Formats: sequence, C-alpha cells, structure tokens
Amino acid sequence: MILINENYARLQGSYLFSEMAKRINARGKDIIKLGIGDVTRPLPPAAVAAMKDAVDDMGTSEGFHGYGPEQGYQWLREAIAQNDYAGLGIKADEVFISDGAKCDTGNIQELFSPMCSVAVLDPVYPVYVDTNVMAGRAGKFNSEKNGYKYITYLPCGAENNFKPMLPEKPVDIIYLCYPNNPTGTTLTKDELAKWVNYARREGALILFDAAYEAFIREDDIPHSIYEISGAKEVAIEFRSFSKTAGFTGVRCAFTVVPDRLKGIDKDGGTYSIKDLWNRRHTTKFNGVAYVTQKGALACYTKEGKEQIIETIDFYLGNAKIIREGLRGLGVECWGGVNSPYVWLKTPGGMASWEFFDKLLDAGVAGTPGAGFGNAGEGYFRLTAFNTRENTQKAMERFAKLNI
Amino acid sequence: MILINENYARLQGSYLFSEMAKRINARGKDIIKLGIGDVTRPLPPAAVAAMKDAVDDMGTSEGFHGYGPEQGYQWLREAIAQNDYAGLGIKADEVFISDGAKCDTGNIQELFSPMCSVAVLDPVYPVYVDTNVMAGRAGKFNSEKNGYKYITYLPCGAENNFKPMLPEKPVDIIYLCYPNNPTGTTLTKDELAKWVNYARREGALILFDAAYEAFIREDDIPHSIYEISGAKEVAIEFRSFSKTAGFTGVRCAFTVVPDRLKGIDKDGGTYSIKDLWNRRHTTKFNGVAYVTQKGALACYTKEGKEQIIETIDFYLGNAKIIREGLRGLGVECWGGVNSPYVWLKTPGGMASWEFFDKLLDAGVAGTPGAGFGNAGEGYFRLTAFNTRENTQKAMERFAKLNI
Repeated sequence: MILINENYARLQGSYLFSEMAKRINARGKDIIKLGIGDVTRPLPPAAVAAMKDAVDDMGTSEGFHGYGPEQGYQWLREAIAQNDYAGLGIKADEVFISDGAKCDTGNIQELFSPMCSVAVLDPVYPVYVDTNVMAGRAGKFNSEKNGYKYITYLPCGAENNFKPMLPEKPVDIIYLCYPNNPTGTTLTKDELAKWVNYARREGALILFDAAYEAFIREDDIPHSIYEISGAKEVAIEFRSFSKTAGFTGVRCAFTVVPDRLKGIDKDGGTYSIKDLWNRRHTTKFNGVAYVTQKGALACYTKEGKEQIIETIDFYLGNAKIIREGLRGLGVECWGGVNSPYVWLKTPGGMASWEFFDKLLDAGVAGTPGAGFGNAGEGYFRLTAFNTRENTQKAMERFAKLNI
Repeated sequence: MILINENYARLQGSYLFSEMAKRINARGKDIIKLGIGDVTRPLPPAAVAAMKDAVDDMGTSEGFHGYGPEQGYQWLREAIAQNDYAGLGIKADEVFISDGAKCDTGNIQELFSPMCSVAVLDPVYPVYVDTNVMAGRAGKFNSEKNGYKYITYLPCGAENNFKPMLPEKPVDIIYLCYPNNPTGTTLTKDELAKWVNYARREGALILFDAAYEAFIREDDIPHSIYEISGAKEVAIEFRSFSKTAGFTGVRCAFTVVPDRLKGIDKDGGTYSIKDLWNRRHTTKFNGVAYVTQKGALACYTKEGKEQIIETIDFYLGNAKIIREGLRGLGVECWGGVNSPYVWLKTPGGMASWEFFDKLLDAGVAGTPGAGFGNAGEGYFRLTAFNTRENTQKAMERFAKLNI
C-alpha cells in the first residue's frame, strides 16, 4: 500500500506569499513591491565574466567538467575558508557547497533523532518549522495557540527589543537567524555568546543562519557564530551567495560543519556531525554546477568584492530611506541598518493583514508580519530590494496614508 | 542533547569508487578509464549558446532573474511534456524540474511512511538503498546475507536473463531502473507491463528511473513507463539531462508525478502524491538556476536534438566496439545496445575485484560488479564514456589478457 508520511498531513497551508500575490494582482497595476525578499540588481560583472568563461569551458573537450565533488570544488571551499573565515580557523574541508541555504537549513535536521526538541524564534522563516513537521518533531498543529505542539517558540518583539529569551525548558536544537529574517535585527557578540554558552551548558545544537551576513555594517555585530569562543563544538553555520551576490536565481550557498562538533547515540556513542553531513551530501546530492561555482569564486576577487559591496550599499541606501521615512512619520521600526529588511509596528496597532490592504490601496506592497508567526502580528516587513526611485516613491505613498 | 539519527549508523561504507580510485592511482599512468559513469563529451553547442545568453541576461537589470518557481519555469516544464511525453497525456504541471535524478530518487521516499516495504533490483544503484537506510526502512545490515534486513533484493543475472522476478512477498515501493544501471539491460513493453500490473494489483508504487532513456534505440523498449496502460496510477518517473545532454556538471533533471497517483493514510484517507511532492519541493528546494534551465530548454530545439543524437550515437559506437570486442574474445556480455554500459561475466568465473586488478594490470579500469550488490559478483561493468581511440585501445589491451 502507498502509505504516506502522515507528518505531511500536519503541515499548515503556506498561504503568505500566494495570498499576497492574489491581493496584489487584484489591485492591478502601479503597485511598488517591497514584499518579497528577492534581489533585483544584476549579478556582479566579475561573476558574469567568470560564468561565461565557464560555459565556454563546458563546450570544449579540454575544458569540459562532468561530475564535480559533491562537497564542492576545493578551490571554492578554500576561497570561502580563507575569505569568510579568515582568522577563525575554519578549514576548507569543513565547508560544504550547496545549491541553497533553504535546502541546507531544510535538510540538516535529517542528521538528528526524531526525538530532538526544537526551538525557533517567532517570527520565523517557515522552512525551519515545516521541515521539522515533515520529520515528525513538531507534533500536531494547535489552532488555539496557532503553533505546533512540540515546537518551542521564542517570541521577539518590541517588548524585549527583539532579543529572544533563552528557552525555559531545555531544547536540543535551536535555529537562530542573524541578521534576522524577517525583523532585520541583530545580536551583538555578547548577546550571541549567551546562546553559545547556553548550548554548551545544555548540550544543545545551534543552527545559525547567516544568509544576510553581507549586510552587516556595524562593528560589534558578529559576521560568524565562530567569532564566539566555543561555538565550534555547538554550532553549524549556513551562508549563501543569494543575498550577498544576487545569486537567488543562480543557486549557490554553503554550510560549515566544524570537525569538533559531535553528536551522540542513545548508548552514548560519539559521532562526527561533519561525517554525517558528508554522508548525506554524497548520498542525496550531486554537487553544484561547475559554472555556478566559478561564478561564486569570482565573488572573492578584488573586483568581485568591490562590486558586491557597491550593490549591498545600494540596498542599504534604500533601507535607510525606508527607515528614516518611517521615523519621520512617527512609525516605530527596527532593522535596515545591517539588513535589507525594515520591520515596523503597524500604525495604531492595526492587524498585519489589515495594514497590508491599507498600504496596498496606497500603491505599496509589503509583507504582513503575522505571516511569519504569532509574534509577528501587529508588525509589517518592507524590503530594500527595489530601485532607488521606487523606494522613494513608496515612502511618499506611505506618507499619504495619513496615519 | 545532540542525539543523532541512528539510522545513519547502519549505513555501510560506500567504498566502491574510492577503492577503485585508490587502486587506479597506485598503478600510476596510462590507465584507460572505463569505470565511472560520467560523460566525457562537451555540452551540445545549442545549450552552450543558450547558457551564455542567459548569463548575459543575468548581468543586466532588464534580463535579471531572481528566484524562479521551485517547480521549474513553465516554458521548460511544457517543453518536456510536449517532447518527452508526446502522446502520453503528461501535463506540464506534473513535471517537476530539479538539480539531479540522484536528489530526486533520494528524496522521493520522504513522502512515504517509514513502514513501507522496499524492493530493489540486485545489482543496484546504491542511492535507492542508502536513502531508505537513512529513513529507517531498511533495518539492520546483515553481514551474512550482505544486505539489509527489510530490503527485498530482486536478483538479476544471466540465469534469469536479467529479468527480475516479481517479489514473492508483497512490497509497497519498487525501484526499477531501465535502461538499467549497472547492467545496461532493458525490459520490453510486455515485461514492464507485468510490473505495472503487479503494482496495480498489490497497491504498490513503482519508482521508475529512466535516466538512460536517451540511449534507447530498439523499437520495443519503452522510453517511459507511462507508455504502459494504467501506469499513471502507480508510477513516478525520473529523468535527467545528465546522460542525455552531458549535464553531469550542469545539474538538471526532472520527475513526473501524475495527478492520478494517490497515497493513503492509516485511516484510509486519500492524498495526491503530486501535492505532497510539490510541498516538499517548495519547502526544501529553491528551484534550478535560470541559466541551467535555459540550457536544458535548448536541448529541445532542432539543433539541440540533433547534437544530442550525434553524441549519444558516438557513445553507442563505443559501446558496440566494447560489446563486439568482448564477444570476439568469447566473453559473455549484455547491454551496450540501448545503454552506455556493457556488463560482462568475468572470464573463468573470477571474482569481480580480482578481475578488476587483472584488467588494471593490462591498463584498463572498469567497475567490479560486486560493488553494486551480491548479484553483481562475478560480473564487471565497462562504460562507453571515453574517446573512440581510447575505447579501441582498451579492447586491444583486453584482448591481450589471454583469457
């Protein structure tokens, strides 16, 4: 009998972006979209040139590349270790290249027991929760609490300045995303150290999603969790070229699994998590395209780095316009300094979706905070991924809301 | 506690290709490699041109593509439905684009209950087995039987002309791969119909891996399982551009999940398997690169099709040289007609690895059949993925074995 994985039946519909699209399309034209977290600027010219050369390679007998190593080409793993982790002691063979942080943050939970308890921030990137639902760690959905029975939600809001409290009951796996999606907020080194210390004390694992690392501009914000002493024993870090270099449609990311990170079985036997991830990677994945990896490598050249900084600065310029525009209107907001996302409190305590409709009537689309979880209700996300002109125009439209 | 998924601890080492590489490297230079199933000829010029144009697109504001649909661009899904499934009634929205048949055949089992029983052919592509071990469906490894406790192995050898028997005990999920890797053998329509009828009668699911479909040249060999009446209710089909268009280093494949395929839960509730796969795809995957999909689309142009046929004909020419060379030496062999693989009985009943060493001494590397399972012992695989000159030279060296 074709018996299904019944955990799938527990998944709640993921209506956020489809519902947004439906309402936006119903409004018709001239809507400025600051909703989806997708980049808008072209690839860095250095990546374009490298990718074209690589496609040429693939068209010749001499330059053709078939299967590459599942973990990624050594030259890319080394460039990442040397550039992204300079001085942090991360080795090339602790870096695994993949086709996306969504895949990696979604797949990583497979390495762990179905009995592991899971904590997430609230609001949250839905992939962390949904992939644990599919694996049976979340239990049933409880409509009253609007959450899954066995997931520990750690609320982040204005009342705690978006700094989540440590879990009251012990948890085994904690997903942290900083700079945060969707709130755009960050943790300082001291604040992140609290989490590393918690994980060390409780024997927990931190899954640290640093997909927005390239947007960090302030000094005291850690770019990597491995800047915190002792993190290599308790943390896996995920990064991506998507938001860094505009690779959302190119697909390249990487995950760092330090040698020192160990897991145990019920009898207390010890396992290298890196070896488990390597086994998963080689069994269920066939590596990232040669052309793509060449494009990613070009991001570490002098030109590539300059081009990336220029693009990110451009987006951060948009974020500043949004942030200052909101503040000028007396709207409370967070993020947008080390992040492309600005998170605002809906004026007058309006519900997220109600505000979505109101702003849409004014010609601007954003994302209702409630779509990211209970603690997102009453908040709203605007993104810096648009042209300067549209961003400015969007803020003019926002100002006309008369709130 | 970081409790691991203990099923991973049941995985046996995957030594086949690493052990081969070790022995090949130890022999030093001038080894002709007919071992690994990786293509050697460059990409079709039509794909190269399309990919370069697409990279150019990505470097401009107007042509830039960010996140695409996780399921693949509609234009590629339609090209596949119209070309690969002409007359078979497969709709574009039943086609899911991915980055590899390895990923898809590895991930598909997630949709099903851990209680489902699994059958595989023996010899077998190891991904089918290992991914079920990781999911807990295989039970413990039994060293005596050299197999997993709960996996049903269906032996294929000279004694049954490589036509597997239907399982004696009912199974829920059956992996079939035709044209077969590693044996290069095929099933006729009537023979495949027996499996479809079995699945319909027993309520089983067939996972049909057709990655080598492009090599089929004989008339009575089905290109798709959907040529068999009733297959849409019981089968998922996997295909790939890897062996078709030399995409092993480009990464593009697709999986067909028909609307009519249903699964059930313990209470008898009915579920669309396509909806479950869609949910997995959108939750754990972020789509295939725009550049890659444009390259795949070019495979369906007139020029692309001609270039692909030319390359496959070239490989089949190599296969013929191997096959006829072996027969001329009195070595029994199979495959190589609708497949790039030739499967031979080791001369004098030698063990697979013993023959590997003997042939390596003569300057040719192949793959020991025992590496693919118990029923592969005493067999050996040679591949057509090399130059004409090397293939001919390899057969001359083979002839000098004096067997």
